[in-house]
Amino acid sequence: MSEVVLEDIRGAHARIRERIHFTPVLTSTRINELSGALLFFKCENFQKTGSFKARGAANAVFSLTDAEAARGVATHSSGNHAAALAWAAGLRGIPAFIAMPRTVSRVKLASVERLGGRVVFCDPTHKAREEAAEKIVRETGAAFIHPFDDPRVIAGQGTAALELLGDVLDLDVVVCPIGGGGLLAGTLIVAKALRPGIMVFAGEPEGAADASLSFSSGVRRPVEHPVSIADGLLAFVGDLTFPVIQRHADGIATVSDDAIAAAMRQIWDIMKIAVEPSGAVAYAAIAEGKVAVAGRRVGVILSGGNVEFGGPAVAK
Amino acid sequence: MSEVVLEDIRGAHARIRERIHFTPVLTSTRINELSGALLFFKCENFQKTGSFKARGAANAVFSLTDAEAARGVATHSSGNHAAALAWAAGLRGIPAFIAMPRTVSRVKLASVERLGGRVVFCDPTHKAREEAAEKIVRETGAAFIHPFDDPRVIAGQGTAALELLGDVLDLDVVVCPIGGGGLLAGTLIVAKALRPGIMVFAGEPEGAADASLSFSSGVRRPVEHPVSIADGLLAFVGDLTFPVIQRHADGIATVSDDAIAAAMRQIWDIMKIAVEPSGAVAYAAIAEGKVAVAGRRVGVILSGGNVEFGGPAVAK
Repeated sequence: MSEVVLEDIRGAHARIRERIHFTPVLTSTRINELSGALLFFKCENFQKTGSFKARGAANAVFSLTDAEAARGVATHSSGNHAAALAWAAGLRGIPAFIAMPRTVSRVKLASVERLGGRVVFCDPTHKAREEAAEKIVRETGAAFIHPFDDPRVIAGQGTAALELLGDVLDLDVVVCPIGGGGLLAGTLIVAKALRPGIMVFAGEPEGAADASLSFSSGVRRPVEHPVSIADGLLAFVGDLTFPVIQRHADGIATVSDDAIAAAMRQIWDIMKIAVEPSGAVAYAAIAEGKVAVAGRRVGVILSGGNVEFGGPAVAK
Repeated sequence: MSEVVLEDIRGAHARIRERIHFTPVLTSTRINELSGALLFFKCENFQKTGSFKARGAANAVFSLTDAEAARGVATHSSGNHAAALAWAAGLRGIPAFIAMPRTVSRVKLASVERLGGRVVFCDPTHKAREEAAEKIVRETGAAFIHPFDDPRVIAGQGTAALELLGDVLDLDVVVCPIGGGGLLAGTLIVAKALRPGIMVFAGEPEGAADASLSFSSGVRRPVEHPVSIADGLLAFVGDLTFPVIQRHADGIATVSDDAIAAAMRQIWDIMKIAVEPSGAVAYAAIAEGKVAVAGRRVGVILSGGNVEFGGPAVAK
């Protein structure tokens, strides 16, 4: 499959549903009052390994034939995809080789190692990471699983929206974050197929607004040095994901790091749950009025919860 | 009713169930591995106003006759009971007068005021707070609703365990925190009536171990200057609650502030939810090995989630 369609996402869900959490959808009277809409929060912060990345990783790992799987899987990532792939490989009893920059934080390294990932250190550049992963693949025959630009991963990520639209009927709008675009592409494919009139928007950090720029110009345009507290959303929108986004998305709203931090804080204060900065970006776009939601029924994907206790510090 | 029995708690639940959240019970594979038991977390941090106190306050407010209710309710508290009573009174459309020390934090004051509570400031001593509340009652005829030593409040707090035991069959143990003892007394009455073989333990901060001391000596004994990061558990165990605890509890374990902070951190890191220090005390007692849970099915009441984002800072 090269172009992912609804049936691929249904197939992915059938493949992974016994392995992942069917995450809850939370609501809050007070947040509804603040936003003037009815918001339904899909809590992927409660997902296995703490983010939606477990969905795509599990779908990719369990799509492999036994012969392919026997040689393991590989990727380059220092974030949620690394932990998710290590976890999914562990479920299948195969090795996961993860190329990580030497500069990776102790916490992220510990998380991948705890899940059984075999970490290969490399220099902290995107090129060095890609080369390290390629070298692993050459030497081990492991299957490379890209963090987002892979049909199996896109189909897996789409299962979050599949659950959300099944749980909450009559949604008018869905909002999710965008980094490389795997979650947004999967969400678009599901939402537009199941409910043609639905609007789907993404939130993106101002400091890593390549998707917004690419979407408005019609051509993939990278940002030179992306920077944001939403460290899961710094990737450049993908070759496979961008065409889906270009065709189906209703808009990409950019939000400042301050708005992201304020959204994290509001979700913590009111809903009592931990979301990481990347996970708060969709709600930040709503809270900032960047997405028109007044009076509507809105699905919001809280994509992950891997943030260290006590931080990041947020001005009060 | 002076002695609270199971039927009072069932009656309380019938009275309040449409007004409160039937809170979820969460589990975590990793926390089960760490504790060597099967833990079922009753998430009162997701309760209305952010703590189980909404249950007792709602039961008390909706137990009043229309004539009584018309004059409002009053209490002294700077914490979760104050917010809960303001909220419950607001639901019934009656005033809630809250005596608070002048030194109360801006956040706690704002919370009570946002919920419509009428705050009366007093000096920051227990005596001054009691006198301020008495004065309000004399002047307004409001019904005084004690934070814990009131049968209506005890019955309301017991509804958390009533839901928990209905949701999770075959629990061997329940663990909850103890401050004044309203939650523990209500939990004991429910648990021992529904499931006579069950063990019920409480966790208490070392710096406010009056209940532990009283329980082991058989006589209510205050602690001179209680101090703990678990600021919801500093109250002296009550006249009404202590006899219930003395008769039915299987033990009270004390935990250090460091252990409480570590438990908060672990719940955040692994379960991605916010619990306040007082809300983490029951789990702290388990994590510290102070309560024997190995191989057992254990209900753990996470009593509240009202803790400011980013804090308290915890050593890593």
